[in-house]
Amino acid sequence: MDNFEFYIPTRVYFGRGQIEQLKHELPAYGKRVLLVYGGGSIKRSGIYDTVGAIAKEAGVELFELSGVESNPTIKTVRRGVALCREHGVDAVLAIGGGSVIDCSKVVAAGNCYDGDPWDLVIHPERMEKALPILTVLTIAATGSEMDHIAVITNEETNDKLGTRNPVLRPKVSILDPTYTFTVNAFQTASGVADIMSHAMESYFAKSEAKLQDYFAESILRVCVEFGKKALDTPDDYEARANIMWASSWAINDTLKLGHMIQWSVHPIEHQLSAVYNMTHGVGLAILTPHWMEHVLSEETVDKFYELAVTIWKVPESEDKFAVAKEGIERLKKFYRTLGISEHLADFGIDETYFEAMAGKAAAQLATAYKPLTKEEVIEIYRESL
Amino acid sequence: MDNFEFYIPTRVYFGRGQIEQLKHELPAYGKRVLLVYGGGSIKRSGIYDTVGAIAKEAGVELFELSGVESNPTIKTVRRGVALCREHGVDAVLAIGGGSVIDCSKVVAAGNCYDGDPWDLVIHPERMEKALPILTVLTIAATGSEMDHIAVITNEETNDKLGTRNPVLRPKVSILDPTYTFTVNAFQTASGVADIMSHAMESYFAKSEAKLQDYFAESILRVCVEFGKKALDTPDDYEARANIMWASSWAINDTLKLGHMIQWSVHPIEHQLSAVYNMTHGVGLAILTPHWMEHVLSEETVDKFYELAVTIWKVPESEDKFAVAKEGIERLKKFYRTLGISEHLADFGIDETYFEAMAGKAAAQLATAYKPLTKEEVIEIYRESL
Repeated sequence: MDNFEFYIPTRVYFGRGQIEQLKHELPAYGKRVLLVYGGGSIKRSGIYDTVGAIAKEAGVELFELSGVESNPTIKTVRRGVALCREHGVDAVLAIGGGSVIDCSKVVAAGNCYDGDPWDLVIHPERMEKALPILTVLTIAATGSEMDHIAVITNEETNDKLGTRNPVLRPKVSILDPTYTFTVNAFQTASGVADIMSHAMESYFAKSEAKLQDYFAESILRVCVEFGKKALDTPDDYEARANIMWASSWAINDTLKLGHMIQWSVHPIEHQLSAVYNMTHGVGLAILTPHWMEHVLSEETVDKFYELAVTIWKVPESEDKFAVAKEGIERLKKFYRTLGISEHLADFGIDETYFEAMAGKAAAQLATAYKPLTKEEVIEIYRESL
Repeated sequence: MDNFEFYIPTRVYFGRGQIEQLKHELPAYGKRVLLVYGGGSIKRSGIYDTVGAIAKEAGVELFELSGVESNPTIKTVRRGVALCREHGVDAVLAIGGGSVIDCSKVVAAGNCYDGDPWDLVIHPERMEKALPILTVLTIAATGSEMDHIAVITNEETNDKLGTRNPVLRPKVSILDPTYTFTVNAFQTASGVADIMSHAMESYFAKSEAKLQDYFAESILRVCVEFGKKALDTPDDYEARANIMWASSWAINDTLKLGHMIQWSVHPIEHQLSAVYNMTHGVGLAILTPHWMEHVLSEETVDKFYELAVTIWKVPESEDKFAVAKEGIERLKKFYRTLGISEHLADFGIDETYFEAMAGKAAAQLATAYKPLTKEEVIEIYRESL
């Protein structure tokens, strides 16, 4: 286990009706708050009105940044920073999924930075402070509600990049599983795939950290046990609650402690969603098994074997590779049971940009679990078509 | 999953040489610090000198409360509070295991309370603030380094009681697994038993919280995998590191979220260590299987079955009770491999105080996983003799 520092100061209120906690949490962080959201779903669900009433009662004035895209753009971030400055905002309240929260984070940091906020995406170390960030989660997927990461797309350069800094970690997050009852099957499946990917990206590490591995397996078990249930019975509270809490833990730093590594599949997928506006979790689900087939080797087989036996219940055997491969097959089948396609082509993707995308992805993979060349990434894209 | 609030603001520095972090953390909390420790082991190991040098370099003046007992007494707490007041101390630095840290916590709270510190043990809600608490952990067991609990003994009344309040949670904890290389086999085994008990006390809950259950199982897996190794090869870094990190997670609140319950075996054991100065983890290891046999029923068998299959690798079978019982047998055997006796009599305990002890324990068990009468607790004590 490598040395590490652990510090997660986010206060989480989890469960039915926890939105009420904003009555004291909102005014604790400011009188003027920027409310950030995406489309109209929070209006249909009633959360918008609830928060409006709570803010009014608490004497907090709300300003609004709406229309945050599913892959949030730096353009929207800039619009948010301008709003903060115009209204002298004290804090940012994100209501939505990872896209809305990620956007809010860079808005909060951008408000405290003199230059263009895109600088903060490519130079995370330039972030020195941020407005306090509060979140109300409505989709379980990215884990942004408890981490210090934001992923922002620059449409001018076709870049989708993650940035991270401790100042981005939310102060308070409200996790009410009932808010995810209305998340449709496609988005639910995509969220589950995203959570599983976060757990696996930390799991395939170079140094050993057993407790963290077992925690990662716990998250995968929950996704396997409750993923399909959440699709089939959207208002199954236990299913939604377990998946929601798993989403936070898959990426709140705990899994990576002591064996931190550059992730592999995320950089490969980010190119897809930057160019094609692909749904992130779906891209991960399509790419992951092919990535696995590429990195499975004498050196890595033991880890794949453990995953196959523990999560996919593949019977133990002396033929380690057979077990490992069967594990990968069962992962593929699980994605199918969630209704996720196995072909990038179904999303209008072809070879046109493989060369450029693979170049950008490979450049990030030099220190990954297994470094991949541009050619290897192109192969993974092709096999996923 | 029941509603819950999650908030763990302890900053943990984990790994070799992390004591160096005190160079900036100590002065961040004060110029005058009370150093709390037990016997002379921190002098033999060199930690005492290291911390002295760091404090000097950082311009921090240290005052000392030494001689904290293995079951820390309210008398020692009172002595610590007097020292804090005499020297106008700003913060408390505990170096040791759970006893030293627990003592430090109540000293830190006692300094900010006008009455006798025993009030804070029996009325935790009276704690409003505490001096900042920093810890350097030298034994992996109680998890006090990351929780908000302290257990204090009152020798006058033969009470050993836990008290809890958010103000007791350490601000900073240094976890260097190499500091536990010199912990002897008996204390190591006792620590492992304590960690396992914490995980199991949360695991046997009335409401479901699957992710938390799987996390608890992760901790148990780590104890089973590395417990014996740590005994046989005291300087096995991976073994010590996994057990140390498991000790914190077994009780830092994460496992109990969403299915919080009054613990069962701890109150039964606390009576033993209050009266006989029994080593806590050993008491837990002796009592736990007998407690399990008492609460195993048609209603609880599924949970015992899951534990038997997942942790003890008992083959699945339709005879759920047989599997559950075999799991309990394997737990007993595991304690034996750690060299822990299965008889309270080996520690000079006889029936003399069973009546009084069982009365105190049963009074705490009304809302436990399975409430137990005084007579049932006496039976458990008897079976453990």
